[in-house]
Amino acid sequence: VNVAFAGDAENFARIPRQDELKLTPGAAYVHFTSNNTIFGTEWKKEPEVGAVPLVCDASSDIYSRPIDVTKHALIYAGAQKNLGPSGVTVVIVRDDLIGKAPATIPTMLDFKIHAENKSLYNTPPCFGIYILRLVMKWLVAQGGLDAIGTINVRKAAKVYAEIDRTGFYRGHAAKDSRSNMNITFRLPNEELEKAFAKEATAAGLDGLKGHRSVGGLRASVYNAFPEDGIDALVAFMKDFERKHG
Amino acid sequence: VNVAFAGDAENFARIPRQDELKLTPGAAYVHFTSNNTIFGTEWKKEPEVGAVPLVCDASSDIYSRPIDVTKHALIYAGAQKNLGPSGVTVVIVRDDLIGKAPATIPTMLDFKIHAENKSLYNTPPCFGIYILRLVMKWLVAQGGLDAIGTINVRKAAKVYAEIDRTGFYRGHAAKDSRSNMNITFRLPNEELEKAFAKEATAAGLDGLKGHRSVGGLRASVYNAFPEDGIDALVAFMKDFERKHG
Repeated sequence: VNVAFAGDAENFARIPRQDELKLTPGAAYVHFTSNNTIFGTEWKKEPEVGAVPLVCDASSDIYSRPIDVTKHALIYAGAQKNLGPSGVTVVIVRDDLIGKAPATIPTMLDFKIHAENKSLYNTPPCFGIYILRLVMKWLVAQGGLDAIGTINVRKAAKVYAEIDRTGFYRGHAAKDSRSNMNITFRLPNEELEKAFAKEATAAGLDGLKGHRSVGGLRASVYNAFPEDGIDALVAFMKDFERKHG
Repeated sequence: VNVAFAGDAENFARIPRQDELKLTPGAAYVHFTSNNTIFGTEWKKEPEVGAVPLVCDASSDIYSRPIDVTKHALIYAGAQKNLGPSGVTVVIVRDDLIGKAPATIPTMLDFKIHAENKSLYNTPPCFGIYILRLVMKWLVAQGGLDAIGTINVRKAAKVYAEIDRTGFYRGHAAKDSRSNMNITFRLPNEELEKAFAKEATAAGLDGLKGHRSVGGLRASVYNAFPEDGIDALVAFMKDFERKHG
C-alpha cells in the first residue's frame, strides 16, 4: 500500500491539494473517503488519478450533493447516514471491475455473484431496502440532488458563519476542506466544551459531543437534519457565547 | 470436501441414520443444516460426530425448539425465519474456534473481530436487532423454547395427520424426517396441485406453492404462524379433497 497523502501530522484538518498526492502510476486503484465524519473534512471534487480506477467510500455524504459517477470505478456507501437504516450498503461498480476477486474471497463479498443475481443472491435486508425507497422518494420530492446540495450548503454555512463570527468558536477543519455533513469545532477549553454539550442537550440539541477520538464538538447535519435545527443551534451558540465568552 | 451423506438419489426426502454417515476422522469440521426448507426434512437430533467440531446452519428452525448448544462448535442462523427481519445473522461460536480464519478472510467475516468488539465493530443493523429483541420477548411470553417446541409439534402434527388421513395427499418427506417448520406434500397430479394453490390463495391461504426446484405444495409454519391458520389449512384440505378427490 502506498499512502498518497497522510493527514495525521495536521490532525486530519484538511483535504490534500491535487499536487500533494503521491500517486503510483499503474496502481490497482486509488481509494479515498469523500467525507471524514470524525474530523469534519470533505472532498469538494474527486482527486484526479488518470487511468487508475478510483474507489470511493461515500458512506457519509452520498446523496448529499451531485457527484460525477463516471469519474469513479467503484463507489460504496453504508446506508446509515443519508440513505436509510444501518444494515444496507449501496455499491456502484464499473462493469470491467467485476469478476476480479481472488478465489479466496467468500461468496457474499464477491461483486460478481451479486451482479449476476441482480443483488438477489441471498435473502436481502428487505425492510432496510424498503426504507431506502421511501428516502429516495423523499429526496426526489425535495428536488433531487441539486436541490438537496443547495440546502446542505446553506445549512452548513449558517453554522460555519457563527463559528467564524468571533474568536470564541474555532473550526477544526481548514476552511477549504470543511464538510457540509459534519461540522467540527472547539471552544477555548475543555471545560467549556463539556458545558456546551451539557447545556445544549438540556436545551434539546443532542449529540453535539465530538467523536471520542477527537474531542471538541461536532454537529452532524445529514440530509434528514432540518434547517430549523440549524437555526436553533446557531441561536444556542450565540447565547452560550454571551454567557461564557 | 467429503460428503458424509448424499440425499439426492432419494430427492432429499429423508435425514440419514447415524450409521449411514461416512465421517472423516480428524476432519476440520462436520457441517449440517438442521432443517431443509425446500424438501421439508428436519434433524430430530444432532448427528454424533465425536470430537470433530459440529457446525450447524440453523436458519430455518432455530428457536423453534430447544437444542443442545453444547453439542455444537458453531451455530449460525439468518434471522428471517423465526427471529426477525432479514439482514441479521446470529452466530454462536465456541471460543476455541475463534481466531482461526486465514489471513485472506475479509475483516467483516472474521469472527475474531466481532468477538473482540462484542459484535459492535461496525455499525450494526440496529432496527433488525431491535425487532429480534421484541421477538425474543414474545418467545419468553409464550413460555420459552420448551413451550414453543410443543406448540410447533402440535401445529405440524395437525397438517401431517390430514396428509396421512387418506391417500389423496402424499407427504414428500419420510415420516421420521418430517420438518415441523416446512410441510411438503404432493397431490395426485400437477393440475390438482395448481388448482390447490390457486383456490387456497383465493381462500386467503397464501404462499402454499412449493419451491420452484421441487414443485408440489409447501406449508411453512414458522413460530409466528398462528394455530388458527393451521386449522384453516386443514379445513381447506378436507374441503378440497371432497371436491377433487
